[in-house]
Amino acid sequence: MTDFNAKELANLGVRTLSPYQAGKPIEEVERELGIKNIIKLASNENPLGLSEKVKQALQDALQGLARYPDANGFYLKTKLAEKFGVNTNQITLGNGSNDVLELLARTFVDASHEVIFAQHAFVVYPLVTQAIGAKGVAVPAKDYGHDLPAMLKAITPNTRMIFIANPNNPTGTFLTKEELAEFIAKVPSNVLVVLDEAYYEYVEAAERAPSVEWVAKYPNLIVSRTFSKAYGLAGLRAGYAISHPEVADLMNRIRQPFNMNSLSLRAAEVVLDDQDYLDESIRVNQEGMKQLVAFCEQKGLNYIPSHGNFLTIEVGDAAADIYQKLLHAGVIVRPVAGYQLPRHLRVSIGLPAENQAFIDAMTTLLHG
Amino acid sequence: MTDFNAKELANLGVRTLSPYQAGKPIEEVERELGIKNIIKLASNENPLGLSEKVKQALQDALQGLARYPDANGFYLKTKLAEKFGVNTNQITLGNGSNDVLELLARTFVDASHEVIFAQHAFVVYPLVTQAIGAKGVAVPAKDYGHDLPAMLKAITPNTRMIFIANPNNPTGTFLTKEELAEFIAKVPSNVLVVLDEAYYEYVEAAERAPSVEWVAKYPNLIVSRTFSKAYGLAGLRAGYAISHPEVADLMNRIRQPFNMNSLSLRAAEVVLDDQDYLDESIRVNQEGMKQLVAFCEQKGLNYIPSHGNFLTIEVGDAAADIYQKLLHAGVIVRPVAGYQLPRHLRVSIGLPAENQAFIDAMTTLLHG
Repeated sequence: MTDFNAKELANLGVRTLSPYQAGKPIEEVERELGIKNIIKLASNENPLGLSEKVKQALQDALQGLARYPDANGFYLKTKLAEKFGVNTNQITLGNGSNDVLELLARTFVDASHEVIFAQHAFVVYPLVTQAIGAKGVAVPAKDYGHDLPAMLKAITPNTRMIFIANPNNPTGTFLTKEELAEFIAKVPSNVLVVLDEAYYEYVEAAERAPSVEWVAKYPNLIVSRTFSKAYGLAGLRAGYAISHPEVADLMNRIRQPFNMNSLSLRAAEVVLDDQDYLDESIRVNQEGMKQLVAFCEQKGLNYIPSHGNFLTIEVGDAAADIYQKLLHAGVIVRPVAGYQLPRHLRVSIGLPAENQAFIDAMTTLLHG
Repeated sequence: MTDFNAKELANLGVRTLSPYQAGKPIEEVERELGIKNIIKLASNENPLGLSEKVKQALQDALQGLARYPDANGFYLKTKLAEKFGVNTNQITLGNGSNDVLELLARTFVDASHEVIFAQHAFVVYPLVTQAIGAKGVAVPAKDYGHDLPAMLKAITPNTRMIFIANPNNPTGTFLTKEELAEFIAKVPSNVLVVLDEAYYEYVEAAERAPSVEWVAKYPNLIVSRTFSKAYGLAGLRAGYAISHPEVADLMNRIRQPFNMNSLSLRAAEVVLDDQDYLDESIRVNQEGMKQLVAFCEQKGLNYIPSHGNFLTIEVGDAAADIYQKLLHAGVIVRPVAGYQLPRHLRVSIGLPAENQAFIDAMTTLLHG
């Protein structure tokens, strides 16, 4: 058995893949550094904690957990369909929107295809592309955001899928509905456009694209959303896609039947009705954004204007060092060198006191 | 856009795939048939309900759910590694063992490969094989179980993976440790053997294979286990693989970082220590198995002797009709025609009163 070499047996794309680097959990930093009361502004989580209504609903649901989840997600799909004015057969549920993005790639992309995404765009797009052995085409960014005309030009006969994140993570950049509409109209119908709107709820209502309505007009458009951000369910894993029914049918063929667990289904269903929680999430985010932006302005730090629940700040060549020093000061932020942004750090918007802790630690570092 | 055809854009294997048919949830049957107090013996779930210790731990964990899960599953992996005497780098966590089985196929199998499994074996093996576009090779069963010599003969230069379920679902058949050891020793090291032990805990201790120990000797062996059965966490989705570290490293490259959610991680960690719950699960299963077997013997019904938490009974040509009549009588069991067992029904072992409800309904049908 000395001739066993797992890597030689693995699929080509997998062999050279680097796994996703998650934001460090609070517990892990506390364990490693031996410090307490860590503030985590690293993973664009909702600083409000779980909705009280969800908490109550989950307590009531615990008894049934020895049973399998509903593989069809009947109640959640019904509620989403009503909310968005679509049919339940247009919805694909995911174990977070990561699962939805992966299902899309695995359903439609093979090793002969090209997949287009923007420089600085969410790392899951190149990861799922490479896992399949397809060719990822990263189109250089324009002002840190998507350069849509250049992305159109990058389409070849081999292009099968284009990922667009709006707002984009980790830059927070935003495409207007006019820009997006023009783009989608120009993409050939045999190229699928995946519009990842994980941060949709943080965008001001008047600026939000009518993306779900566009799905009726453009069957090659898929809209992906998540409950991990404004809805505060990151720990439960809940996301969904809205698409043409045929696209959903195909995705559901390879979807693991119990990809969303019983508590995730229930929590998502309940939080969709908790408008007060959502409103408060958005309000806290707007205030926190002002707080961080004011700090950057005051200190003369460049930042990328953000439409998400985070701000990506240019801290300079010492970004990696500053990240470590913040960690030791008890504040976890996110290095984004892996996104070709080696001079920036991404700071999630927290509660006012959490934002202030970052500001204080950063102030000490700048003057230290 | 009238020229859009999603199916033409989908990968070949996906186009002809039929999705997994889950056991009907109690709620769905109640909704559809307008009846109440349904008894579900359809999905090999633990009839005890959730462990009380897990319930308490989950209540305590609700507050943290707006945070992402620990992508590395530090605490659960540490506990599993201690329990099984392996290193944490040999463990891959899954959103149920379905996720583990899919990760294995996606890591090592491509469209040029063949994957071997047994007739009547768990349907996820052909499903994950077909989704990749690989060739599934179903080896005819022997006495409803795996014919290991025939499976060895089915190996070709293109074979990359063999799935073995022990005990097998939906037949409950069992391979002795001697049979398995002989088989694994004969499989070439460039063929991965996935030993799916979802029902492992129900096997009598003396009969259980030392499969985890074999991993040290056979780097091409992967053992898969679940928390969905004897541990009672079906609704939470928790499973794991134990393998050579290189195999785990490769699987973890394409694993979704948050595939197990925060509550699943916590529940699995807690229930591993709840020996009383596990013992009671096994005891209830043994008693219920005796109850169902005695009924079959009394009525002269053939059944497949089972080492799992279910009994597959030959009810005859009217199996589909009997399934429907049982449904209307308020008892959900599992049709297994999709497993080439059109004359059988699979009945999960429930609590004594649940088993009796099946026996009563079946008795009425037999004499009706």
